[in-house]
Amino acid sequence: MMLAADRLFDPDPAQKTAAMDLYALVQGLPIISPHGHVDPSLFSDPERRFENPTELLIQPDHYVLRMLYSQGISYEQLLSKENPRQVWQLFAENFYLFRGTPSGTWMTHELETVFEVNEKLNGDSASRIFDQIEIALLSPAFSPRSLFEKLKIEVLATTDAATDQLKHHETIRSSDWGGRIIPTFRPNAVANINTPGWSKNIQALSEVSNIDVTNHASFIRALEQRRSHFKSLGATATDFSPPSPRAEWLPGKKANSIFQRALKGEVSSRDATRFSAHMVCEMARMSTEDGLVMQLHPGVFRNHNPEVFSSYGADRGFDIPIQSEFTYNLQPLLESFGNHPNFSLLLFTMDESTYARELAPLAGAYPSVKLGPPWWFNDSWNGIRRYFDQVMETAGMYNTVGFNDDTRAFLSIPARHDVWRRAAANWLAGLLVRRVIDRQEAESMVMDLAVGLAKKAYRLA
Amino acid sequence: MMLAADRLFDPDPAQKTAAMDLYALVQGLPIISPHGHVDPSLFSDPERRFENPTELLIQPDHYVLRMLYSQGISYEQLLSKENPRQVWQLFAENFYLFRGTPSGTWMTHELETVFEVNEKLNGDSASRIFDQIEIALLSPAFSPRSLFEKLKIEVLATTDAATDQLKHHETIRSSDWGGRIIPTFRPNAVANINTPGWSKNIQALSEVSNIDVTNHASFIRALEQRRSHFKSLGATATDFSPPSPRAEWLPGKKANSIFQRALKGEVSSRDATRFSAHMVCEMARMSTEDGLVMQLHPGVFRNHNPEVFSSYGADRGFDIPIQSEFTYNLQPLLESFGNHPNFSLLLFTMDESTYARELAPLAGAYPSVKLGPPWWFNDSWNGIRRYFDQVMETAGMYNTVGFNDDTRAFLSIPARHDVWRRAAANWLAGLLVRRVIDRQEAESMVMDLAVGLAKKAYRLA
Amino acid sequence: MMLAADRLFDPDPAQKTAAMDLYALVQGLPIISPHGHVDPSLFSDPERRFENPTELLIQPDHYVLRMLYSQGISYEQLLSKENPRQVWQLFAENFYLFRGTPSGTWMTHELETVFEVNEKLNGDSASRIFDQIEIALLSPAFSPRSLFEKLKIEVLATTDAATDQLKHHETIRSSDWGGRIIPTFRPNAVANINTPGWSKNIQALSEVSNIDVTNHASFIRALEQRRSHFKSLGATATDFSPPSPRAEWLPGKKANSIFQRALKGEVSSRDATRFSAHMVCEMARMSTEDGLVMQLHPGVFRNHNPEVFSSYGADRGFDIPIQSEFTYNLQPLLESFGNHPNFSLLLFTMDESTYARELAPLAGAYPSVKLGPPWWFNDSWNGIRRYFDQVMETAGMYNTVGFNDDTRAFLSIPARHDVWRRAAANWLAGLLVRRVIDRQEAESMVMDLAVGLAKKAYRLA
Repeated sequence: MMLAADRLFDPDPAQKTAAMDLYALVQGLPIISPHGHVDPSLFSDPERRFENPTELLIQPDHYVLRMLYSQGISYEQLLSKENPRQVWQLFAENFYLFRGTPSGTWMTHELETVFEVNEKLNGDSASRIFDQIEIALLSPAFSPRSLFEKLKIEVLATTDAATDQLKHHETIRSSDWGGRIIPTFRPNAVANINTPGWSKNIQALSEVSNIDVTNHASFIRALEQRRSHFKSLGATATDFSPPSPRAEWLPGKKANSIFQRALKGEVSSRDATRFSAHMVCEMARMSTEDGLVMQLHPGVFRNHNPEVFSSYGADRGFDIPIQSEFTYNLQPLLESFGNHPNFSLLLFTMDESTYARELAPLAGAYPSVKLGPPWWFNDSWNGIRRYFDQVMETAGMYNTVGFNDDTRAFLSIPARHDVWRRAAANWLAGLLVRRVIDRQEAESMVMDLAVGLAKKAYRLA
Repeated sequence: MMLAADRLFDPDPAQKTAAMDLYALVQGLPIISPHGHVDPSLFSDPERRFENPTELLIQPDHYVLRMLYSQGISYEQLLSKENPRQVWQLFAENFYLFRGTPSGTWMTHELETVFEVNEKLNGDSASRIFDQIEIALLSPAFSPRSLFEKLKIEVLATTDAATDQLKHHETIRSSDWGGRIIPTFRPNAVANINTPGWSKNIQALSEVSNIDVTNHASFIRALEQRRSHFKSLGATATDFSPPSPRAEWLPGKKANSIFQRALKGEVSSRDATRFSAHMVCEMARMSTEDGLVMQLHPGVFRNHNPEVFSSYGADRGFDIPIQSEFTYNLQPLLESFGNHPNFSLLLFTMDESTYARELAPLAGAYPSVKLGPPWWFNDSWNGIRRYFDQVMETAGMYNTVGFNDDTRAFLSIPARHDVWRRAAANWLAGLLVRRVIDRQEAESMVMDLAVGLAKKAYRLA
Repeated sequence: MMLAADRLFDPDPAQKTAAMDLYALVQGLPIISPHGHVDPSLFSDPERRFENPTELLIQPDHYVLRMLYSQGISYEQLLSKENPRQVWQLFAENFYLFRGTPSGTWMTHELETVFEVNEKLNGDSASRIFDQIEIALLSPAFSPRSLFEKLKIEVLATTDAATDQLKHHETIRSSDWGGRIIPTFRPNAVANINTPGWSKNIQALSEVSNIDVTNHASFIRALEQRRSHFKSLGATATDFSPPSPRAEWLPGKKANSIFQRALKGEVSSRDATRFSAHMVCEMARMSTEDGLVMQLHPGVFRNHNPEVFSSYGADRGFDIPIQSEFTYNLQPLLESFGNHPNFSLLLFTMDESTYARELAPLAGAYPSVKLGPPWWFNDSWNGIRRYFDQVMETAGMYNTVGFNDDTRAFLSIPARHDVWRRAAANWLAGLLVRRVIDRQEAESMVMDLAVGLAKKAYRLA
């Protein structure tokens, strides 16, 4: 066995015992996954199977790919479809690179809990483990739908472009299968007007909405129409990723004149920035009206490595975080809607320096603001610990929203929730042994961190 | 009993034992409170009594109010004077929101140590506890003056506007009561020229100083006159909160022309910024002359929520921190006075990213610079731990100034100092069990952190 | 004995035992010192001796000096050559200021391990300890060369101006002494065109390179020539410290016109910034051609205290860190060379907020980027712990480069490496008791952190 029962917990015996007791309460609870990037097509066809271990575990996981690339292994080798066993061998030989990383922890968890792999992955064991997984994947027990149930996923939210027709969601919904898979409205590719391919996206928006998008007003109407369609298929939230959290209302005329320039392909960098800032406000306004929870994800320099982007596309590990500023940037938005009873704004960041300084004070005061969990690189063991450390005292736990796995790698969902649940139990055990809370409080809090807060914040109950 | 003797200390038995030994040395020492916002009128009338639990413990404490507001409870309900018992009940039912927060820790400490409340505050116990406190408050033993003595406060500094006549301080000083309560000179409302009501403040400054403030020169003279008056009533320090730590000397003409525009109500945002930067230098210059210690508190966006501000005023939990930069901003000030033997500059921040990067290196080099304690949101258990972690190795403990409670809530003073003393003992115990210091050193250091450093830095000995 | 065998390790018994086991594997390994500021002249003459304790341990160490200065002790007193014993006495009486600081830890380590001083340094013991060291220094066993061997330094890289003739390196290399001391190419004084004395430096560059530096092209040729000379004397790396990590290619004409203005002494602040940014790119380009590893050290405000600078010169504790931004600033550089197989870029920072946000993601993706160790103020016990905490999960340990001591104080080299090795063992022990890695992994990792990563990254094997 690779996975020790007491893994990750702090070593002090009193704290570890308390942590294990708390963890036992939540270890087996269903998984609420309110934000992620799993492909819904996995679940629309009951006969769908995963291919081989390489296509399942390595090639879709840019956390894994970028680490190998950082050590000089080429994307050409890694993404080859010709010899999956060879790619797997290369991965296994270099699996030592993941020592002490969350990807290493998750991968080991997936191998053992899903495929019962009980030996260490390395060059020697690579081929045996490949065989073991490949054989398992042939069985119906390892179909995406079966795994969804086996892994006890209660609800899984995908992330879908505003222009997505949501065919797979419709199919799943109208099938007799009971898995709850819901879309999330993601307007990035139409709301950030300097997105490559923006005009095509607008054309697609016209088509899918049956609204001829020719100006700012019709653009807004089309977005409202799409949000309504997403809602009808179970969506409870949106997910917007502008370059910065800056919010700024533009007068209708101004907004439209920028939109017109964008339609003509004459967008300046300043236009794009201001329009995104305006869309932050518009998305909030729509949320107050239709009740969809608003997630805001700023602060990333996308596709930092043009050579990798042009050869291998997006999501190859080269989205690099940048500094963010929330206090000034969000003020115009919160001036408009911060006290609105129907508005719920979930803030995410990659800039931990904003946790204690800006985000916790905002969440600890505005009724509409809650803090999303540590995200992306930061849902690691220490990343989660730093979040509890820097956020909770000021924001208060009840102004946070539990966990997101935010993953493209379906099998990593339970692994990631397990790390979160252990980290939550460990944090609460720390408060318990320091007498800051009592056992009854700790038990209630660990349940909320595992399931309750996410259900409530995402209006999934 | 709610308060365990070993609360807050790290769980490792060796460290905890060492921490408890060190804490025992300082637990009962008198309290030095060199920076806070308690109302001096509490102490000028010997017959003064606190009202009910709600007016004492909830309504003046914006830490408590903003957390309740963040969960959708309205300020209208919370600030109502009509039915204090009802507000208390509402607070008690929602006291679970404070789990793991410093406000929760402080409140429990106040209830038990001051009022001997030994049961948990919640909806069931609310009314009983209300009665218990209300009865106590009728007794002379719970008058502000009696509590001041019972809580062993050796000196309490208030914070007072430059235009304050300090009548209560005069009354206290000329009474036969021995409590040492001293003012602190706070020029914010006259030195930040874009303060709402600035002209009125300047008029008040003219009146109180008997100097006709019509230009920059008379403004400076009036401030000097006020500082001198504050000193005569025991003040040893000033407290200036400009928007940023930027320091810039303006030539006299330039400073005066901005001042003249301000008098005419024609202040630009740039004027205000430059004038505040100039006043940072002027305040320092005055300190080198009159020996008042200069406290600098930059980096806050005040009254971030205009709706709450217009209905319920300032100090409602919506002052939100912002990023600060000290290295460049303070250089002109330190070029002028950084090596001056009579100058003492205490720096505070809400931006922890500056602790190790800027503040500790500055304090560890300039003889005039010392670091104020973790402040505001950051005087929590973990906030203090992060301060010790990130500041002490580079600045050296002797370039820090002990603790400030910085509170408006009188009864929270001992609770806050208790957390600081425990945190200091715990930090030193950590150094002791790691053999970085020996016991004799730890004992000397814990005494200095509890009392000695504050006395020395604020020239209170 | 002042130094306990288990010093610095975390107190939990399980973790401490594991840490001591891991530390035992690396405690006695040779020291790789690939980046520092020791004077090579110490080693070129076999008869060279250190003077007295004050000139050896206090006066060259600006970490020590600035702490004493920060408490009001003047540089005039501290730097006096007249009575070394008096300076030592003053230092000893104030040695309590270093409690809990890395300088305190290092000094105690040096006194005990090199000079067998077994009593605490203070006013009483000062004179005895002075005698003890002074006598030792007379012995050949305490010559720089002997100490180099005794301290088990396998390789020591110095840092040398681009214009340095490297006479001492030549002498050492052509001697029969086997100590490996290599230069590092540091172009700061010629590449940052607003450096005081720049024209003289350019003249010196012309002379030493035999290339008449009259324009940008000849400047570049001269740098290339110097790099080649450094390489011939064993250099494997360069070390550039621009004000910010900004990289920007200037067209040749533009670069030359700035260079011409610089030659005429007409440099604007904008010119200097852009030229430094251009030199970041040029230095990288040269590295891809000659294989020298590129170190980048941005983010410091040099000589912050003009009064101290004008009286006592540079390196007096007044280089104060500033915020840095790497994601945007480095993109043009990484677009050019980030995927180049021959390029190796080691990034250093004083701005810890960039560790998890920018540096670890960059190092965890680009094959050319590695992270330098915590540097300068941050190679303290807690600074190293924060580095492991914030960097390793995202970057992966194999994208870091082990330790640099970066010191001017020769005797502090083993003390600093000892702290690093203990911190590494303690970090790995933490992962081990949390079951994140197993013992075999921990043993391999601790060896790499102590020696292997530095050798590989600096191409010293």
